[in-house]
This record gives sequence, structure tokens and C-alpha cells, in this order.
Amino acid sequence: MDVTNGNDHGGIVGGIEAGGTKFIVAVGSGPGGRLLAREQFPTGDDPAALMGRVIEWLAQAGRNHGPLAAVGIASFGPVDLDPSSSTYGFITTTPKPGWQSADIVGPLRRAFPGLPVGFDTDVNGAALGESRWGAARGIEDFVYVTVGTGIGGGGMARGRLLHGLVHPEMGHISMPTLEGDTFAGVCPYHGRCWEGLCSGPAIARRAGRPAETLEPDHPAWEITIRCMAHALATITCVLSPRRIILGGSVPKGGRLGQDGFFRRLQQHVRGVLAGYVASPSLEEAGIADFLVPPALGDDAGVCGAIALGQAALATGAER
Amino acid sequence: MDVTNGNDHGGIVGGIEAGGTKFIVAVGSGPGGRLLAREQFPTGDDPAALMGRVIEWLAQAGRNHGPLAAVGIASFGPVDLDPSSSTYGFITTTPKPGWQSADIVGPLRRAFPGLPVGFDTDVNGAALGESRWGAARGIEDFVYVTVGTGIGGGGMARGRLLHGLVHPEMGHISMPTLEGDTFAGVCPYHGRCWEGLCSGPAIARRAGRPAETLEPDHPAWEITIRCMAHALATITCVLSPRRIILGGSVPKGGRLGQDGFFRRLQQHVRGVLAGYVASPSLEEAGIADFLVPPALGDDAGVCGAIALGQAALATGAER
Repeated sequence: MDVTNGNDHGGIVGGIEAGGTKFIVAVGSGPGGRLLAREQFPTGDDPAALMGRVIEWLAQAGRNHGPLAAVGIASFGPVDLDPSSSTYGFITTTPKPGWQSADIVGPLRRAFPGLPVGFDTDVNGAALGESRWGAARGIEDFVYVTVGTGIGGGGMARGRLLHGLVHPEMGHISMPTLEGDTFAGVCPYHGRCWEGLCSGPAIARRAGRPAETLEPDHPAWEITIRCMAHALATITCVLSPRRIILGGSVPKGGRLGQDGFFRRLQQHVRGVLAGYVASPSLEEAGIADFLVPPALGDDAGVCGAIALGQAALATGAER
Repeated sequence: MDVTNGNDHGGIVGGIEAGGTKFIVAVGSGPGGRLLAREQFPTGDDPAALMGRVIEWLAQAGRNHGPLAAVGIASFGPVDLDPSSSTYGFITTTPKPGWQSADIVGPLRRAFPGLPVGFDTDVNGAALGESRWGAARGIEDFVYVTVGTGIGGGGMARGRLLHGLVHPEMGHISMPTLEGDTFAGVCPYHGRCWEGLCSGPAIARRAGRPAETLEPDHPAWEITIRCMAHALATITCVLSPRRIILGGSVPKGGRLGQDGFFRRLQQHVRGVLAGYVASPSLEEAGIADFLVPPALGDDAGVCGAIALGQAALATGAER
């Protein structure tokens, strides 16, 4: 879908933010007061049963708030985004118990025949939501990264969501070893990849207690932020985004605070790039507008799911 | 420009591959026998004088081979790609003597009033050429990387060339330190970034002599290839390309040979990804089609410049 054409249609759309811990379901036409109803369900280990509850809730919400014009799903992954694939709309190789090869789109199609169904990764969904209503309005090239239990990234290039061979798996890029850092990382696949070094569980393992309990001057914050700066500089070099939106629980910064977290991270990103990429956005005066939190806050995901539904409606995609 | 619409128009187009060592100029409508004439000029340190010689050659070639319908330039950088900028079409902050703030597009516009002028980075140009005639035909999401004196990357996402804040600077991503590797790297900005570790000059510094003289089992090959695998895995995680095209002098592999170089690199890329990104393209049987040399070989650059001219013609862009 070319989301530059995906304007709001005014209709009521269902959105499903499918996360590894909980599913958030909503109906509406956008953020804030345009979210008419929402509910959440624990993800559990039985996709078919959960999708049944989600569908039941959406059907009732559609009866309460006007007929649904479309549904969008922004899902944890990896997911199959290839419309020509027999497993399109499935969660594929996740280690999450019960969720390997779980069909997410199929039950919705069967429950709501003919309804356009949009489907993408959780981070591409959030990126689309931020593009329509948040921190990426009017920006064709940007990245949305979430740092929490895991790390994932999505975004747009030239106004289109990043897809490709599978979809971006930005959390698993290779990382430098900072001087004196002997931490082995927590990623079961790569050890010291970005997710292995900077996710919430990585910080907790490094510090011996959860990130949100750490003092602002705890050394785990400093080394985590310095590592993260390398990852964001790498993304800047590969994609040349005009903005990076950084969501999730870790950038809230715990006792360090979101402002403190972002200020330190922004300076370290500038330090890693070392002036090589010449842009006002990467200078002292511009970096605060280059690396930002999501404008939709914790609603980025479910609003993104609604935006995916709207985009499917706009393109007439019944999927 | 949306290159998916950029079909050949049959006309004769001028192409300029603007490199840091030489400028290759050609007229034609594509690769092979469709390249009607070509010439090259040393880049030197006087952009205005060089552009004068280039323009003179193009004007004469246009008289010999039919009127020029457009001109395309694929340039070393960094370059200004923002059409709304007062320095659009300039090479900007290069350390190359004489070339800071050098206007490349302006002289062509003045010499050929009204002629569409396409302009992009050398690697985006090569990517476009490979997309039209080479190893990326029919692929909307791919990356083109060149590894030689420097390292640069371009490509397409969803069928559009990667632009953004500036343009990708893939050669400067952060890199892990492989066990036992104490090499400081050669990048004046970042030391051990990808270019600092794996460019031709980096290999020569590491080995004490040029890459092309090294025995196939020289340890500098092994560590360079292992480092490069991390960079290509990172690009795979950030962009999810369906194919990576790797050109330039280093992947020719010197006495190791191109086939040997690619085979070893392909296996190390699989090793770094460790099976996390699930795709047949990254499996043993698929990797040889995922990471490939340019199909246009050494003509990728100048054919890409012609493709940029054709794309400007197709979109009617007078720039």
C-alpha cells in the first residue's frame, strides 16, 4: 500500500495491537477522542481462542459504535507479509509457546467476510500511526524503533512502509564492544546484538535489577545509552531517516526520566557520527528534533493498527 | 522519481559516472551494445574545468549519435539531493581538494537548457542500472554496495531509491571487534567503521601491501570477510533487502578470486545471522542468489547514470 494516499475515510475501523504480552483492541478513527472503545487481553498460549475473543469484542464494538469499515493488525513477529504466500498473515518462527505458525488474519477474514484487513509488524503499524497523527507527519523517510522486552524497528522510505525479504529486524544488528565492557548480552541467537545489549532484560541482567529501579547515575544506564547510540547511528547511516522515533518502555528512562534519557542519547549519537553525516538535524540545535519519543505515546501501537485498517480500506485491499 | 514507471524511452541519453578518481561519460540507451560512445577524464581538482570538458564531449556525442533526450549523473558524495535546496546538485562536504561545494548539475543545466537532468549518488545510480538491466530486475527492495577505495551503499525500498535526510552513508556503520583483532581502522572520522575496516586501503594497511597481491589464505582476507559479513547482516536486519549486490574492486577478491570471495562471505553472513531471519534466501541453497556481484560489472556506474537520465526524462523532471 502507498500510505501517502491513505487518508482518513471517516468510518469506524477496528485496530488490534498484537503484542507478546497483551493484545490491545480498539475501534475508532484515530487517536485521543477518536478512540471510541478499547479493551485488552493477555496474549496467552492459544492463538485461536484469543482471536475468538478479539473477534467477539470487535463485533460487539461494531454494533455499538457503527459498522466496521475495516480492521488493521499491528503484530509482534516475525510475521509473513507476502500477500502471495500461503502463510500470509501468520506469525511464523517466534519462540513464544503456542504462537509458531499462528494464523492471525485468517480468523478475521472468516469472521468479517469482505472487510478490508490491513496487516503489518507492530513497529510498522506504529510508524504508520505516527506518520498520520504523530511525530512523523509530513515526513516520508523515518524510522520507528521500540525498545522494551525486545527491540524492533520499522518505518518508511519515500513514503512507503519498509517491507522486503521478510521485514526489518533492526534489533538484531551487530554491535561494537565498548572499551571495558565484558557483558555477554542476552540474545539467544546473537548474544551481543542490539537487543542483546540494550533491551529491558539486557539492562536488568547487566545491573542485577530492573531498569526502572536504577539510579540516574547507575553505570548500566550510561553504557546502555552509549551502545544504543551506536545502533541509532548505524540506522542513520543505512537508511538516512529524517527522524527516528524511539518508543517502548526503556526510553522512558525509569528514574533517569525520559528527558534525561533522550538528552544523553542524542549527544552520544552525535558523538558516534562524529560530524560525518552533514545535516542541520544532526547538529547540536537539531538533534532534539531528530531523535524523539512517539507523539502518540502508549497509543502509538493501537492507533497504528487502526491506521493499517484505514490504509487497507483506502487501497481496497481485502487482506 | 518513482523508477517503477521509468521505462526506456528509446532516446539517446548522456550518462556521467562522477567518481573520485575519474569521470566516465557515455551516451546511449543501456548496457552492452546500447552504449554508443564513452570517454573518461581524470577527476582532478578543478570541477568547473572538468565539467566544461564533460559538457563539450556530451555535446559532440549528441551531434554524432542523435540529439540527447536527457542527462544523468551518478556522483561520489556527499551530494545534495534535495530539489528545494539552493545547493541541489552540488557535491558538499567531501575532503577531496577542490571539490567542496562543487556544482555539478548547474553547468549541465546551463549548457543544455530544458534538458531533463537526473542526479543521485553513484551507488543509487548503479542500483537503478542494476534494477533496470542487471541483478535487481523485478526486485523492489534491494541494496547496492560498492567496496573499493571507500564503501558506499544505495538501493531501493518498495521500488524507490533510498534518499532521506541526506542519503545513505552505509560505509560508516559501527562494527563489532572480532576476537583478537587489534586493527585500529583507517577511517579518519570513525576509525573502525565498515569503511575503516574493509575498504581497499584498510586491507592494504592491515596486510602491509595491496589486497590484490595477497595470497588466498592470507589472514587479512579472512578477517576482512568476517567483518564484512557483520556489516551485510546489519544491512539485512535494517532494510530486509531481497538481494544485496556487492560491487567495487575489493569483492573481485584479488588472488582469492571473486567466486572464492563471495562463497566465503556468503557463509559468514549466514553465520552472523545465525538463522534468526527466516527466509529461503538466507539458507544454504539461497544465499548465492541473495548476495551477488553486479550483473553490469564495471559498467554498473555509467549505465546507472544513463538510467538516472532516463528516469528524469520519464518523470519530466528538469533537474
